[in-house]
Amino acid sequence: MSGNRFGTLFQYQSWGESHGSAIGCVVDGVPPRIALTEDDIQHYLDHRSPGRSRHTTQRKESDTVEILSGVFEGRTTGTPISLIIHNEDVRSKDYDDIKDKFRPGHADFTSQEKYGYRDYRGGGRSSARETAMRVAAGAIARKILETQISPDVIIRGAVVQIGALPCNPKKWDWGEVAKNDFYCPDGTMIKKWEKFLDERRKAGSSAGAIVEVQATGIPAGLGAPVYDKLDADIAKALMSINAAKGVEIGSGFGTVELGGEENADEIRKGKKGAAFQSNNAGGILGGISSGQDIIARVAFKPTSSILTPRNTIDKDGNETEIITKGRHDPCVGIRGTPVAEAMLACVLADHWLRHKAQCL
Amino acid sequence: MSGNRFGTLFQYQSWGESHGSAIGCVVDGVPPRIALTEDDIQHYLDHRSPGRSRHTTQRKESDTVEILSGVFEGRTTGTPISLIIHNEDVRSKDYDDIKDKFRPGHADFTSQEKYGYRDYRGGGRSSARETAMRVAAGAIARKILETQISPDVIIRGAVVQIGALPCNPKKWDWGEVAKNDFYCPDGTMIKKWEKFLDERRKAGSSAGAIVEVQATGIPAGLGAPVYDKLDADIAKALMSINAAKGVEIGSGFGTVELGGEENADEIRKGKKGAAFQSNNAGGILGGISSGQDIIARVAFKPTSSILTPRNTIDKDGNETEIITKGRHDPCVGIRGTPVAEAMLACVLADHWLRHKAQCL
Amino acid sequence: MSGNRFGTLFQYQSWGESHGSAIGCVVDGVPPRIALTEDDIQHYLDHRSPGRSRHTTQRKESDTVEILSGVFEGRTTGTPISLIIHNEDVRSKDYDDIKDKFRPGHADFTSQEKYGYRDYRGGGRSSARETAMRVAAGAIARKILETQISPDVIIRGAVVQIGALPCNPKKWDWGEVAKNDFYCPDGTMIKKWEKFLDERRKAGSSAGAIVEVQATGIPAGLGAPVYDKLDADIAKALMSINAAKGVEIGSGFGTVELGGEENADEIRKGKKGAAFQSNNAGGILGGISSGQDIIARVAFKPTSSILTPRNTIDKDGNETEIITKGRHDPCVGIRGTPVAEAMLACVLADHWLRHKAQCL
Amino acid sequence: MSGNRFGTLFQYQSWGESHGSAIGCVVDGVPPRIALTEDDIQHYLDHRSPGRSRHTTQRKESDTVEILSGVFEGRTTGTPISLIIHNEDVRSKDYDDIKDKFRPGHADFTSQEKYGYRDYRGGGRSSARETAMRVAAGAIARKILETQISPDVIIRGAVVQIGALPCNPKKWDWGEVAKNDFYCPDGTMIKKWEKFLDERRKAGSSAGAIVEVQATGIPAGLGAPVYDKLDADIAKALMSINAAKGVEIGSGFGTVELGGEENADEIRKGKKGAAFQSNNAGGILGGISSGQDIIARVAFKPTSSILTPRNTIDKDGNETEIITKGRHDPCVGIRGTPVAEAMLACVLADHWLRHKAQCL
Repeated sequence: MSGNRFGTLFQYQSWGESHGSAIGCVVDGVPPRIALTEDDIQHYLDHRSPGRSRHTTQRKESDTVEILSGVFEGRTTGTPISLIIHNEDVRSKDYDDIKDKFRPGHADFTSQEKYGYRDYRGGGRSSARETAMRVAAGAIARKILETQISPDVIIRGAVVQIGALPCNPKKWDWGEVAKNDFYCPDGTMIKKWEKFLDERRKAGSSAGAIVEVQATGIPAGLGAPVYDKLDADIAKALMSINAAKGVEIGSGFGTVELGGEENADEIRKGKKGAAFQSNNAGGILGGISSGQDIIARVAFKPTSSILTPRNTIDKDGNETEIITKGRHDPCVGIRGTPVAEAMLACVLADHWLRHKAQCL
Repeated sequence: MSGNRFGTLFQYQSWGESHGSAIGCVVDGVPPRIALTEDDIQHYLDHRSPGRSRHTTQRKESDTVEILSGVFEGRTTGTPISLIIHNEDVRSKDYDDIKDKFRPGHADFTSQEKYGYRDYRGGGRSSARETAMRVAAGAIARKILETQISPDVIIRGAVVQIGALPCNPKKWDWGEVAKNDFYCPDGTMIKKWEKFLDERRKAGSSAGAIVEVQATGIPAGLGAPVYDKLDADIAKALMSINAAKGVEIGSGFGTVELGGEENADEIRKGKKGAAFQSNNAGGILGGISSGQDIIARVAFKPTSSILTPRNTIDKDGNETEIITKGRHDPCVGIRGTPVAEAMLACVLADHWLRHKAQCL
Repeated sequence: MSGNRFGTLFQYQSWGESHGSAIGCVVDGVPPRIALTEDDIQHYLDHRSPGRSRHTTQRKESDTVEILSGVFEGRTTGTPISLIIHNEDVRSKDYDDIKDKFRPGHADFTSQEKYGYRDYRGGGRSSARETAMRVAAGAIARKILETQISPDVIIRGAVVQIGALPCNPKKWDWGEVAKNDFYCPDGTMIKKWEKFLDERRKAGSSAGAIVEVQATGIPAGLGAPVYDKLDADIAKALMSINAAKGVEIGSGFGTVELGGEENADEIRKGKKGAAFQSNNAGGILGGISSGQDIIARVAFKPTSSILTPRNTIDKDGNETEIITKGRHDPCVGIRGTPVAEAMLACVLADHWLRHKAQCL
Repeated sequence: MSGNRFGTLFQYQSWGESHGSAIGCVVDGVPPRIALTEDDIQHYLDHRSPGRSRHTTQRKESDTVEILSGVFEGRTTGTPISLIIHNEDVRSKDYDDIKDKFRPGHADFTSQEKYGYRDYRGGGRSSARETAMRVAAGAIARKILETQISPDVIIRGAVVQIGALPCNPKKWDWGEVAKNDFYCPDGTMIKKWEKFLDERRKAGSSAGAIVEVQATGIPAGLGAPVYDKLDADIAKALMSINAAKGVEIGSGFGTVELGGEENADEIRKGKKGAAFQSNNAGGILGGISSGQDIIARVAFKPTSSILTPRNTIDKDGNETEIITKGRHDPCVGIRGTPVAEAMLACVLADHWLRHKAQCL
């Protein structure tokens, strides 16, 4: 109820502050007898890990995950899986300046207003450091989908726009995504994005981004018709990622300019049942998966932690100015990619178990 | 868990099909001693009511709500408030054609895949008729906010774009919204939208729209820092409305093209505490309300029920063609406005009670 | 969260006051394609119905249930099933006397303290009239168990003690239960109970009772190992029935006097797997069903609504005296029997769906 | 949903197996700014700690708790409080014998049936070792009640019966409870219980017990009128403790033999409002606290882990015999006392927050 837990049947409770001794989560509802090792989770954590390039935060964290419960001799037991990552590179001194000042664009002011008290070091609970646990939980969600639906389920993401520089969808190449520092699917954009981000960083500024995530191999039938529509849950999950400001499904905001006959995806008879002729719906109709690829996009605002001085007030209400030093991602959207993938995996695992309960 | 319920502390369970005998909901968690009459709810239902103009469905429903429980001598008792609306203008014959055919862009196919069985009449549970209960519940949510926070809390919405025709934000006039058939805040757009929608309807087509909702008078502190961020819950609530395909908060997708120093709203000392110098955040920082106006937008796709013949398949997998007659909104976004307002009210009432429980 | 809802996956939201226009519930999470008619539910409601004999309340209610949604052409659709029963024999005048006085042993005082306001007529929301909806929901729960587990699942109950007069377990005859007014399984007790209850009623007093419920045909594996143990959920469900003051599973309080070797049920090889040699456990080990009969008992206090004058205070804190006229069960335990059966059915249906989700 | 979590607003997620590397829990929903140290929690853990006397298990665990998050400079921040206790005295070899055999009276058989796989060492997740986390969470629940209601809130428990040897309620002395190894409130029973338990242990047997818990200083108004009655939630919480088989509130099963006029507690005018003349209700009327002491009892069966050989089957269904060596409490009810206290504290803290949300 305090909003630190994700999901209903597949669910996890996350905990930990940016500069505490550790962060962790407890994943519950996982079916028994699924092969699971720390390596399975570490694989995705490494993918997200900070310090990959100069375009992400320079904080050094090995992010080594440890499984404390719920797995016995390499297989899940159906009991809670407790995961922990010890914090290593904690330089709380960097944050002395923000102890009493509210950084614009951050949760400092609102946390103080809500709780009347806060662990200000590194943003405390509001830090993007928490997203490591999303990626860890997502790794387990993937295992459930791969084991119970099909090993062919694929959930992946890419950065499709940085600043005002979008990729060209026609040049989309999944093979490219793993090769560059931006999870960019369009090789022609790499140089442009590098140049743009370097400029922004030098100017003491930052950049926004749009991330697209896709799930392939999800059968029709996952979701619910009213409040817990599959797309509604995806929207919530993606919007809950730090710095997210917008979410869209399939052709999203773009559908507004279409006519009904352009937008609604026609159906023909295919080899394996329904063959949709397009995918404006993003794989979801009436809140329920259609069997097509599920496609969603999330917009990340430019990082608020910048070196340009900004007007603000302090805890006593006095006007002051702030520069956020620390070590920050100039474009949080980049590292948001594996997080967005993980959230999609978690939503799908949850709805898969819900579908099993009621309809299978 | 089946997705027919909204909320955690302020919550309601909705029920009913488009062509059943009635629809209804049970609103629970409402604080006691709040003055509440059927008129309070009817006011908002009339606002949403179909048949207002040629630009919305011609189905005639008085949508007269009845309170069956939870209110005693004009005040809430703290027990569940059961609301019912009897269906009147049910022409199920109109739907014989879709009994066995899947309408493109509709939940027909996915409902059949999920449940293996469905009430096909008028879309059954997936019909936008269900949104009447959202508006009814929203009326009660408003009462909670007005009674427990301030009578000055205002939650309202407007259509800001139809098709490719956006309003001019500089011409925004709330007084205008109530005067026209479109909830349009920019009087200069009325004629253009009328002409555009008439053309679309004549062409057997339909149009999408963007709706903006705003909440004024909400104090800082509502929300949660991680998964149940206030903006995440708003995103889910808005995306759960029929035909919604995208949601954004504050400057939303537009923030992607801003620099960090442009986007993060600076703070100065105001008469009543913090005075933000802009509102790109849409009134929410780190998932918690800042005291500024809360602003969100939702994109509605063009109605899929159109007179233009479309390719599809039937239940047996055979290829066929379909025209959706029935009586449908050519632009569902218009009637989506009071629904989006109601959802915002419901999210805020829920988070208000959550805030009370933990922090007050 | 306000405690008017039962269950997690199989769940229902109940509403309505004793003297309102109607009572009802919305049952959600029901699997699709299950045959269900109003008669299926009415059958169990008639079983519980008041006015069966002089030993139960003389309020006349036909308790005719109507299905408003969720069933299409005789089968469930997987959407919420809304049930309503209109109140008929409402004599609110009977309650004028309790408008301002708190009946000892009733919720009058505590409701007033909690909500600061209440519908006092007939106890309002706290009336046992609400239990009609438990029986209705239980009828649907049974359908789920019979359809998805086996038609041989049987859930039934009996009154095993009234006042200080227990049945003899050796004379247990399920055939007897349906024949008498007490749901008594021991024919030799009928005359004694009749005499005893007549005496109590004439004395302006009332009597307590113990009800035993059993579920046969439930497979091993339902439940959970820690907080949501199957027996913990049964305990909650039975204790939530009006006037319940104690619950026990299997040999219950009696196990305290046993040695470990007497209590733990030994296992031998049977025709269909494990053959337990006794059932002190009541069919549940470590919170999970063992495949044996599930057995629970609930103790009902004597009705607090009696004709003997009792000391109490009024709303202003002044001392006064009260006689509760109205029309009341002299021994609520009797009509508690079909309610206790229903609650057991609901717990089992819920855990069945939960088991499907995680382990099947 | 997998039953490893307690509560709704005050809630905690527990994890860990008897012989894993650690056990822990994450407590969420705790109000901010409450003073909390590890010592506050350790105090209650030490109270429960094994190895206090020959009447409890000889497993040596210091049970040193560590706070990993949610507390900053000695005060709660309103974010999740992660607690961990590292397991020390793990002798898994003791359990090789039960790897393939099902211990009668244990969760071995049912866990295997449910999950098809289990961590058999020391009972895995079903071990009473998990109850350490209940005590830890209970310590935090007490802090909430003491801080937000009154420092005078007291929650305490006592063993009132072992085997067939009950205490004399008239000799109840809370001062005595802390002095003996049994949490016994009646000093005249100590010798008798010692003798009785020594005999049972020598005979390779074990003993059951009844524990009574009381909460003093709880105001009227906590609870809910229907499914989440305060007593229903207490019943569930107590029944969820390992080895519990029965629960009763106030005069419990004893009320069955009373007349309505004897049972219903009369009310007179007292100095601070209502003065109840007796407390058969156990401080709860209609599911809501009355302001009187809250009183509940839980029956614990005799430990099933005994040295007397017992008939059972193995995983392949073959008949065999088993002796449970390991290190076990001969009377689990004794150490069940601090656990039962903790569960009562947790239920009350949860309902306190729920009451705040809706009614304050």
